[in-house]
Amino acid sequence: MSRPPSPRTRLRRAHARGRHDRETIDAALDAQPVCHIAYLRDGTPAVLPTLQWREGDHVYWHGSSASRALRAQDGAEVCLAVTLLDGYVLARSAFHHSVNYRSVMIYGRARRIEDPGRKLRHLETFFDRLLPGRWPTLRPMTEQELKATAVLRLPIEEASAKIRTGPPVDEEADYALPIWAGVLPVREVIGTPVPDPRNPDGVEPPEALRVSRTG
Amino acid sequence: MSRPPSPRTRLRRAHARGRHDRETIDAALDAQPVCHIAYLRDGTPAVLPTLQWREGDHVYWHGSSASRALRAQDGAEVCLAVTLLDGYVLARSAFHHSVNYRSVMIYGRARRIEDPGRKLRHLETFFDRLLPGRWPTLRPMTEQELKATAVLRLPIEEASAKIRTGPPVDEEADYALPIWAGVLPVREVIGTPVPDPRNPDGVEPPEALRVSRTG
Repeated sequence: MSRPPSPRTRLRRAHARGRHDRETIDAALDAQPVCHIAYLRDGTPAVLPTLQWREGDHVYWHGSSASRALRAQDGAEVCLAVTLLDGYVLARSAFHHSVNYRSVMIYGRARRIEDPGRKLRHLETFFDRLLPGRWPTLRPMTEQELKATAVLRLPIEEASAKIRTGPPVDEEADYALPIWAGVLPVREVIGTPVPDPRNPDGVEPPEALRVSRTG
Repeated sequence: MSRPPSPRTRLRRAHARGRHDRETIDAALDAQPVCHIAYLRDGTPAVLPTLQWREGDHVYWHGSSASRALRAQDGAEVCLAVTLLDGYVLARSAFHHSVNYRSVMIYGRARRIEDPGRKLRHLETFFDRLLPGRWPTLRPMTEQELKATAVLRLPIEEASAKIRTGPPVDEEADYALPIWAGVLPVREVIGTPVPDPRNPDGVEPPEALRVSRTG
């Protein structure tokens, strides 16, 4: 499924890197929960770093109901970005140095989920995506906690992806230079779990304990 | 050195995580080049993912002189965010799950560097920070390439850092539950360099080849 680009999502430069198909967009969203959301606060641009998750044709994020950022975003135009840095691209000239990356940009109007039942189901899905199997093992959420939590969503409609992969692209004459060129790959890794010192004796991490999505 | 927080950088929630001292702000900026810059484009919020570097009391970024984003940012109010995800914090309740992170937010007016000589020196410093020792080994930048490159900067004045570390903080009654709690550490690693297939025979990566700053 692919939508025609809007004036905001059409890429004016480096067209070859631009993609508008949902498969590419969804794969990047699903690979990295960290996102940055630009919004207007008192008339000036602000950015909120938070975690996103995708359900079908929407991306979701959550936070405190008291959060100024989430209050300002509700009903407002936002721009949500997910960025995965995949490598530093070392060329023979400074100019052609680059990075390998997967990047998604979604523009649109954010809306708060009002219904408590739906809100709870979305939070459960968030856990299922990030920490599969953990939600059912937890002390259930109280009504008070649910009230204190806001969930917002944004349709994946006006969206684009941008991807760069592979070696540097140098000026033809520069390839003969005795300069090492190539890629320094970057990735995010999950280390050994660090148990809370207050865990009761004998409580072991479940085998399923892992972060399912990491780029 | 610490400045009093402005209305935009004063933290209204989770005050304990907020910091305004330059040492903390600079350490986070220097640990992660990836940044997200919120700005206004045609009246709506947009975000640019790019690489930043710090020189003294300013952060810098660069891009194509033809970039719509950089043109829109020049002389305009922006908000630059650097975010380092350090871990997923697993609590006994969904509500108290969190992330460990270091986050910096800088508000202000971005300005383009006009003087070509200054621009070149800033780009060299960018390389020195990210890829120490590489700049002098490269084919020198041409006048044309320098013209095609824009460098912008933002003063580190209206800035704040936010940091969370350590185990989850649960409701006192929940600590007795037989639920594993703790932290899944996250970090960014640089993999083995992948040589460009077009490297001339015998060209080896210099020993200094490394990314100096990674969180």
